[in-house]
Amino acid sequence: MKTDIEIAQSVALKPITEIVEQVGITFDDIELYGKYKAKLSFDKITAIQENPVGKLILVTAINPTPAGEGKSTMSIGLADALNKIGKKTMIALREPSLGPVMGIKGGAAGGGYAQVLPMEDINLHFTGDMHAITTANNALSALLDNHIQQGNELGIDQRRIIWKRVVDLNDRALRQVIIGLGSPVNGVPREDGFDITVASEIMAILCLATDLKDLKARLANIVVAYTYARKPVYVRDLKVEGALTLILKDAIKPNLVQTIYGTPALVHGGPFANIAHGCNSVLATSTALRLADYVVTEAGFGADLGAEKFLNIKTPNLPTTPDAVVIVATLRALKMHGGVAKTDLNQENVEAVRKGFANLERHVNNIRKFGVPAVVAINEFVADTEAEIVALKELCAQIDVAVELASVWANGADGGIDLAETVVNAVENGGADYKRLYSDEDSLEAKITKIVTEIYGGQSVQFGPKAKTQLKQFAEFGWDKLPVCMAKTQYSFSDNQFLLGAPEGFDITIREFVPKTGAGFIVALTGDVMTMPGLPKQPAALNMDVAEDGTAVGLF
Amino acid sequence: MKTDIEIAQSVALKPITEIVEQVGITFDDIELYGKYKAKLSFDKITAIQENPVGKLILVTAINPTPAGEGKSTMSIGLADALNKIGKKTMIALREPSLGPVMGIKGGAAGGGYAQVLPMEDINLHFTGDMHAITTANNALSALLDNHIQQGNELGIDQRRIIWKRVVDLNDRALRQVIIGLGSPVNGVPREDGFDITVASEIMAILCLATDLKDLKARLANIVVAYTYARKPVYVRDLKVEGALTLILKDAIKPNLVQTIYGTPALVHGGPFANIAHGCNSVLATSTALRLADYVVTEAGFGADLGAEKFLNIKTPNLPTTPDAVVIVATLRALKMHGGVAKTDLNQENVEAVRKGFANLERHVNNIRKFGVPAVVAINEFVADTEAEIVALKELCAQIDVAVELASVWANGADGGIDLAETVVNAVENGGADYKRLYSDEDSLEAKITKIVTEIYGGQSVQFGPKAKTQLKQFAEFGWDKLPVCMAKTQYSFSDNQFLLGAPEGFDITIREFVPKTGAGFIVALTGDVMTMPGLPKQPAALNMDVAEDGTAVGLF
Repeated sequence: MKTDIEIAQSVALKPITEIVEQVGITFDDIELYGKYKAKLSFDKITAIQENPVGKLILVTAINPTPAGEGKSTMSIGLADALNKIGKKTMIALREPSLGPVMGIKGGAAGGGYAQVLPMEDINLHFTGDMHAITTANNALSALLDNHIQQGNELGIDQRRIIWKRVVDLNDRALRQVIIGLGSPVNGVPREDGFDITVASEIMAILCLATDLKDLKARLANIVVAYTYARKPVYVRDLKVEGALTLILKDAIKPNLVQTIYGTPALVHGGPFANIAHGCNSVLATSTALRLADYVVTEAGFGADLGAEKFLNIKTPNLPTTPDAVVIVATLRALKMHGGVAKTDLNQENVEAVRKGFANLERHVNNIRKFGVPAVVAINEFVADTEAEIVALKELCAQIDVAVELASVWANGADGGIDLAETVVNAVENGGADYKRLYSDEDSLEAKITKIVTEIYGGQSVQFGPKAKTQLKQFAEFGWDKLPVCMAKTQYSFSDNQFLLGAPEGFDITIREFVPKTGAGFIVALTGDVMTMPGLPKQPAALNMDVAEDGTAVGLF
Repeated sequence: MKTDIEIAQSVALKPITEIVEQVGITFDDIELYGKYKAKLSFDKITAIQENPVGKLILVTAINPTPAGEGKSTMSIGLADALNKIGKKTMIALREPSLGPVMGIKGGAAGGGYAQVLPMEDINLHFTGDMHAITTANNALSALLDNHIQQGNELGIDQRRIIWKRVVDLNDRALRQVIIGLGSPVNGVPREDGFDITVASEIMAILCLATDLKDLKARLANIVVAYTYARKPVYVRDLKVEGALTLILKDAIKPNLVQTIYGTPALVHGGPFANIAHGCNSVLATSTALRLADYVVTEAGFGADLGAEKFLNIKTPNLPTTPDAVVIVATLRALKMHGGVAKTDLNQENVEAVRKGFANLERHVNNIRKFGVPAVVAINEFVADTEAEIVALKELCAQIDVAVELASVWANGADGGIDLAETVVNAVENGGADYKRLYSDEDSLEAKITKIVTEIYGGQSVQFGPKAKTQLKQFAEFGWDKLPVCMAKTQYSFSDNQFLLGAPEGFDITIREFVPKTGAGFIVALTGDVMTMPGLPKQPAALNMDVAEDGTAVGLF
């Protein structure tokens, strides 16, 4: 069996100029990055503002398990299949972070015959967006520390700096550091830490900004620290939003690439799905909607985090609302939600499928609460049995949700035709009538309570002592009308990663809030959230190499 | 008077595809980065290996003073003028670091009517080379700390790790840090520090590597730490040279841009000129030599550092040796070397010019020791007087060195015609017969002694206690046959920055050595060397912005 990189390298790529002609983009509209990658110019983005807006399909998933669901792969395969059945389709996806690529993942641009290409470039530096975000984030840190060093006119309390530095690597040793040591000319000693770049608020901002002006306004609104008088210090107080915008002026332009089947793909931005909203950029999705009739996009983690945030945080920034939501599941993962151990997943277990279905069912119902029709997509595996499939279809019929098997990993576009037709039917006849779960005017407590009770299926919300204090402060600072961004384990509806299936009766405790006033949301932490991964004992990097002709080796 | 960025933005750039046609490069030979930047493919680099090799002109300078010499500006103007008088010329330059751009400089791509364009891009992310180097450098750090965290099989002594992390920013607070704090899962606590990216050994390696294979071999040879048994630990022991090469596979390809006059320019790599060799990449210079009849390139700092390293370290890696060396000076700077204070430079002072000439004279004699003809280029300023110019010309005649005034900043190519003609004469009739100052077989002490006595004009070399111990160790490790890379103040021939002119009778003390076995040289430290600059009270970043149409503001 071929690996992902072998499949990717066996494809004869078309020049990106040729790919984008399908959607009315010419050579003058783009900035090439090599022959197979490009950024779309602002002139073109402006020129298409009055174009009709296409249909929007969000791909999400059940709560993930180590068995894997294949959400990106399914998104790409669905878009390829939609094109194959005659719908002019584009795809909008997140771009991968180098850290996990060098660590465990090896690569993250779909898989099998459902990949975006050139996968080597997308997984490495791509068009430099991550590097620009890293640079902007760390320039802000350097300018902040320099402000303190040069007299601290704003009265910044160096014990209350919340802005951290970042690197786009898995580097646990940088999680908690002390900087400014050695001499008075080396700055003011203080505690600091590094997150991975995709956890930077600047990534979230880049993914929500609608243009350069909005980008600058959001950057200006980042809170970086508090003064000795406990007042927030914003980027605008440091007067560096112009420089940060300059550093990001190209990174904000959406990137154009292609799938194995030549579907034009916008791969742009990739914020975390816990401490941020987990979706590709608003600019990429909006642009795709103005260029194509159908747009497939995805949201990170399971639907309780990814789709909830897509629908409550990202959607209000888009020119349209979703016409259908595809929920990806596998029989293997449903069996795990039904209590089967990972080692036993290759054995038929219809009862476990029935039991695990509760997880899928809750996600379907949740999507319906937003007024959008759901379609279930089963990502086929060799070990799936006929009896399991029959049982699942029966269960889906009982709750009146369409379900299709898809084999896009193995068969590419052909493996997604049935799914594509079902999705088109949902889009055209599903009667989508989007409503947001909460309004900005709801208090932070009310927003969180709605998410916990209506989406997670929990009983109630508790606020820890720190969170309670912050609720008062945030109201005082005028931050309480912002949307909420929940930081919770992706593995369970609850805040306990081991509670699989569809747990009930649980409480969620909000330990602390983190203001992301630039991005425009308040993060609610339900526990410890990892914002800097570590490397495993045998990092993927150990297998990487480059052939003498420049071909990448060891990405997969 | 127009600023540099105003001049740059007033030029109608030609597509880079059109620019490179002049030197036989087609669309298929390059990878575009937007319309005005490109990287040259390895296929093309391989295809031109048998091309005839052009004439090589190195531009260097007297010891710099705050009055400024304008070396990059002169290099660009000379290349434009050579093209204007009918010589097919390319230029090979270093690429700027973002740190100083955000700090004091605002920009570094020539000035006035002698600039490489697009200056905004070159000064910001360009084609991502700096980011790739930052990433490779820090990936190595993360993999090293991970090795220790995962059991430390190699027995690395965490008190003797010499590999530091980097950022491409001026960030003094990161000079000295403690990492790995907080918990056993956050790694092993230890001291670390961040250099600016251009100080990374990986930058020096990228600039000396002749192809991907050589790049990988040099990366494998980096020493990162010592074991508890005091044995060196190399990158090859960590088995990550493949991954590092993969991260750098595009960064190693030379970047193509244009000057204001449409001269094709290779702007690629930019190592420090104290702890590294201070020249653009070997690949850029070699490529230019195989595409053009004349190649103008430059070396960092004054000729005692930059030209010495170009001639002793870089030249042996090139397909030819220099045919002429241009030494840039200004009357203002000569007056400072002659004892005039910065505030009095606008007053005529012929005596000070005569006195300061000693600095220039020693540089001319030094270049002649390498068997290469020297030409003096005086970068014209408004305050220069006729009497000063006459005096300088007289002094140059006495030592039989050609001298020309040039006004390329104000007048572009037209301002450099006389200089170009004189340089052509030196190239064609100067009888260049390059010889290296030392041989690899000389001991480190002998190499340093030759540099200090024959180039600096010093009396002798002292080795401090640490340096003495290292000399023994390095011989044991087999590092003593490498070239020497002197780390010394750029302002004086001596190691005392206040000794201007042509000091004599001084000693140089080598405090410590730093092995750069990947780059292939041993750095000799004569004092404290700043490898991480700080930001000033009013950083250039405060004036930066981007207009709504995407135009850069505040670079200069």
